[in-house]
Amino acid sequence: MTNRDISTIADCHLFKGLNEQDINTLFDSNRFIEKNYHKNAIIRFQGDEYSDLMIILEGEISAEIQNPDGKKIIIETLKKSNAVATGVLFASDNTLPVTVVANTDIRVVLLPKKTVVQFCQENEIFLMNYLQDSGNKIIFLAEKIRLFKFNSINQKIACHLLTLSKRQGTDSVRLPYSREKLADLFGVARPSLSRGFSEFYDHGILESEGRIIHILDKSRIKEIIMGGD
Amino acid sequence: MTNRDISTIADCHLFKGLNEQDINTLFDSNRFIEKNYHKNAIIRFQGDEYSDLMIILEGEISAEIQNPDGKKIIIETLKKSNAVATGVLFASDNTLPVTVVANTDIRVVLLPKKTVVQFCQENEIFLMNYLQDSGNKIIFLAEKIRLFKFNSINQKIACHLLTLSKRQGTDSVRLPYSREKLADLFGVARPSLSRGFSEFYDHGILESEGRIIHILDKSRIKEIIMGGD
Repeated sequence: MTNRDISTIADCHLFKGLNEQDINTLFDSNRFIEKNYHKNAIIRFQGDEYSDLMIILEGEISAEIQNPDGKKIIIETLKKSNAVATGVLFASDNTLPVTVVANTDIRVVLLPKKTVVQFCQENEIFLMNYLQDSGNKIIFLAEKIRLFKFNSINQKIACHLLTLSKRQGTDSVRLPYSREKLADLFGVARPSLSRGFSEFYDHGILESEGRIIHILDKSRIKEIIMGGD
Repeated sequence: MTNRDISTIADCHLFKGLNEQDINTLFDSNRFIEKNYHKNAIIRFQGDEYSDLMIILEGEISAEIQNPDGKKIIIETLKKSNAVATGVLFASDNTLPVTVVANTDIRVVLLPKKTVVQFCQENEIFLMNYLQDSGNKIIFLAEKIRLFKFNSINQKIACHLLTLSKRQGTDSVRLPYSREKLADLFGVARPSLSRGFSEFYDHGILESEGRIIHILDKSRIKEIIMGGD
């Protein structure tokens, strides 16, 4: 594996905290496969068994689903250093819920499940990262489901912030997610998210300071959650 | 740890495939704590940091949330041999999304996160079980979100079965979840789930044989998904 590839892998969140020497040690054997795919190639079909963890070394891929009416929907776009479907790899039903398509010419590294298990046993940081990745996905999805009961984006913002405020024990809440992730969490497009937050700022209910949100009017937040939009 | 407790832990899905000798080896040191709580005691508050994996040795607990309007909702009831919040333990934000209450007098074993990591490194089966548990939770929650877009229970049943049929490559589909889990997946009560399935049987669209469901009329299934309920 070249130094450039090792540095790409070092940027993958599963290898966070490992230096390039550590990564070299893990990858220094015949425990992985490299593969190339041309632009527009279908890399994996929805329903295919997923038994090798895929990490992107070069290029970009899309995860797509096909609706029963035949329409394609892009679920996610993944780039260099991203790992594909970390949760599916170890699930009892390890078939992919999405079709994976090459958006550009791509190069990937494939780590057989057995290798990932060996990495976990040989390197505690990698193990912790893998468990953290799964834990974070579970928390994110569970919160998304919890927020489904609210119809309006303002209710979702209010409820999410009130929960964070309780958890963090402060009215100056640190948002754990990027704006992009937040839009996904609330099931809305980015512009709707921005408009939602702007309303809160304009009415003096919230104040933003980077990723910190100050809750200025908590009783109004509660009213909004209860439906007083 | 007594033989009885070891046999209780052997029934926990995280220890599936380990014999009592293996479990004894893992637990044979000062790496865990045992605790007792009285009936109605609040064991952990929503928002508490969750840094010790809790496994129930005796009794029953509830995971509850409090809505902004003050109403309590029971999310889950856990019994002997169940592990609590396996996903939260390793998440970046490892605060509990629920309040944990003792329904009876209970006795639990607490495994510090560090011990769980050691278990993963010392025993490959335990590691695989932990990763599988997380993977299964992710798949379940993602499928639940996917099905949210359908309003009727019949559409949810149709869409879930069609997806399983694609994945399993057969029209005789094996349901991966118990009826209880399925009701949770579809966000409905058990009786509604049964009524939904009965309609499919009555109209000759599906036929049931234990946990195998035969899809007899696939084009009708597709029509139902498209809204022809």
